[in-house]
Amino acid sequence: MKQMEGGVCAAKGYKAAGIYCGIRKNKSKKDLALIVSETRAACACVYTQNLVKGAPIAVTKANVADGYACAIICNSGNANTCNANGVEIAETMCDLLGVALGIPSGDVVVASTGVIGKPLDIEPIANGIAPLVAALGDDSNAAAEAIMTTDVKKKEIAFEFILGGKACHIGGICKGSGMIQPNMATMLGFITTDAAISPAMLQKALSEDVPNSFNMVSIDGDTSTNDMVTVLANGMAGNKPVTTEGEDFSAFKAALSAVTQYLSRSIAGDGEGATKLIVCQLKGAKDHAGAVKLSKSVINSPLVKCAMFGADANWGRVLCALGYAGVPTDVHKIGVTFSSAAGAVEVCKNGTGVAFSEELAKKVLSESEISIEITLGEGEASATAYGCDLTYDYVKINGDYRT
Amino acid sequence: MKQMEGGVCAAKGYKAAGIYCGIRKNKSKKDLALIVSETRAACACVYTQNLVKGAPIAVTKANVADGYACAIICNSGNANTCNANGVEIAETMCDLLGVALGIPSGDVVVASTGVIGKPLDIEPIANGIAPLVAALGDDSNAAAEAIMTTDVKKKEIAFEFILGGKACHIGGICKGSGMIQPNMATMLGFITTDAAISPAMLQKALSEDVPNSFNMVSIDGDTSTNDMVTVLANGMAGNKPVTTEGEDFSAFKAALSAVTQYLSRSIAGDGEGATKLIVCQLKGAKDHAGAVKLSKSVINSPLVKCAMFGADANWGRVLCALGYAGVPTDVHKIGVTFSSAAGAVEVCKNGTGVAFSEELAKKVLSESEISIEITLGEGEASATAYGCDLTYDYVKINGDYRT
Repeated sequence: MKQMEGGVCAAKGYKAAGIYCGIRKNKSKKDLALIVSETRAACACVYTQNLVKGAPIAVTKANVADGYACAIICNSGNANTCNANGVEIAETMCDLLGVALGIPSGDVVVASTGVIGKPLDIEPIANGIAPLVAALGDDSNAAAEAIMTTDVKKKEIAFEFILGGKACHIGGICKGSGMIQPNMATMLGFITTDAAISPAMLQKALSEDVPNSFNMVSIDGDTSTNDMVTVLANGMAGNKPVTTEGEDFSAFKAALSAVTQYLSRSIAGDGEGATKLIVCQLKGAKDHAGAVKLSKSVINSPLVKCAMFGADANWGRVLCALGYAGVPTDVHKIGVTFSSAAGAVEVCKNGTGVAFSEELAKKVLSESEISIEITLGEGEASATAYGCDLTYDYVKINGDYRT
Repeated sequence: MKQMEGGVCAAKGYKAAGIYCGIRKNKSKKDLALIVSETRAACACVYTQNLVKGAPIAVTKANVADGYACAIICNSGNANTCNANGVEIAETMCDLLGVALGIPSGDVVVASTGVIGKPLDIEPIANGIAPLVAALGDDSNAAAEAIMTTDVKKKEIAFEFILGGKACHIGGICKGSGMIQPNMATMLGFITTDAAISPAMLQKALSEDVPNSFNMVSIDGDTSTNDMVTVLANGMAGNKPVTTEGEDFSAFKAALSAVTQYLSRSIAGDGEGATKLIVCQLKGAKDHAGAVKLSKSVINSPLVKCAMFGADANWGRVLCALGYAGVPTDVHKIGVTFSSAAGAVEVCKNGTGVAFSEELAKKVLSESEISIEITLGEGEASATAYGCDLTYDYVKINGDYRT
């Protein structure tokens, strides 16, 4: 497998575009994105588990029920959620795009992200569809930009991989910076591949991947209402279609995982106001479910997050967060090590502090990517959760987001 | 029932003291507190449910297993948690105090609060016990001050109430500002009463009270390792002892609740860095457990907390937090109103936004105490949770607490 340029346009037969259509007040920020496959593609999606769901989620679910789609349209600046006419607006977006592209509106995936509870005006979108389609090209940058909200960095990646002797490609873009604790699905992520794979196997690959990638990210413990990840697979690489488990399915999953792991880490590292990516690697748990709960509890603790911001090796807060995670654990076996590019420093062994150099700890915790390595010594299960530090800027960004 | 001065010294037969003994570097901040009852008192305690527990918790549990105690000693500046010699230190504190007061060490409640994982030096405490006992007096202020960590405001209250025709008194002090999401117990709270009540009924009263008072507070979702609430009842008011349920038990519970409700609100309003007390009043839930989960989910959402800091009526975040609380709810029936001393503004009805005056909303949300009133329309259960806004200062305080 080798990394390549091109994001969602890296795979054969995909074009993308992103424009400013007028949903946002700030004209310098694109707000409408489009991804189109030349041919009808197998389509798999996972969605937020929040009971309050964006209207586009319901419309997309209905549209991809047959396992296929041709295009993805997404606006930023407004989540189209908790609005009386939300479903109608989302359906109109699909209808207008279907007419413009000459495809059934039922082959459109629709997504929205931004403020909740503000009616979404269809007019700028209706006027924007023609220029959006006209802008379609081989560059996924504009689309990656148009789906961003408070994100600071664009998030895109692509890989080439081999299936049954054929070169296949897979690439993705995503957004997500606040209101991020995906649960069974996540944020907005759009992934394209030219591999040939059946809708059922594509959905299986995505559903098995997400619990270990996007669902292990948490910026603030807030599970959004509009989370969604979509994969389109148009088969244009010409490989023998993947229709069962086996070597090819495993190779596809590995490629999908390469994309989702990169995108997940990108989201965590670009958390609202974040200055550091925090990776919590937990080992030696009794079972996987417990490992997930424990590692996420550490990543979500505001006190741990503040300590990481301040480069303070306050490991007691890590133990505290493990202790309230709701997982039976022998606290007298817990070990904690902080590590980064600057080195590693063991701070706790058998649930008790060990002497360490405060100077080294400060150096380790001043890096932009920090690992909190936890050992439980109770079994073989492990989990890795991704988060970020809690900073003044998170408060600033979210103290006045709506107005 | 009428409010009175005196905190833990308001009830007959109690004296208190607080001094600086040298646990903290900052000599201007008291760090050792003592509360003593003239006679052996019935004693009830509730403790943190965090699996990582402070050593004093274990020692206190053993000491009060017989239902009685005479004195409470508490240091701040160090939690005596996750230390190899923690139990030994806590036991020594009880032994030294027992000798100084001429009581069995098994009649001492011991508590510690502060940094986790830093060994607690017994020397300043050993040297401090004589001056501490010498300082005993009728003023609970010094004790209330000596148990504070990052708290800005002292928290004490007292009431007079009538049991079987006799005037009884109950008063309490507590501390708590960060690492606050009590679970089945909470923070440090010390309550004294001269009412006569059996240990069993006292424990029953406390255990029934805490789920609706301290356990409904959350500053940051972090359940501490050292939470504890203790009530001493020495019977010196001379009322007929409360030994069963009935009118007197109900009157005692009402008095206890008056103390714990006041202290709970004080903790929430004095959350680390907080500028506002946030009260989430949720009504119309199917059952109480669901109402608790839903109201706490709103109070804990970093995004809701930041919006309150910015006086931004971003009700979509309230719906989002309700949606991920893990409680089955018909989101199309949810109503939300923000209210304060400046008025009330309805922002959401039937899960959808309603037109409102942004100007009024800004005024309402700029007050120092804000209610988020939520109606579900699904049943008769309700719950009230207490929290605060998330501010720059929370990050500042916790970015460098340990050093």
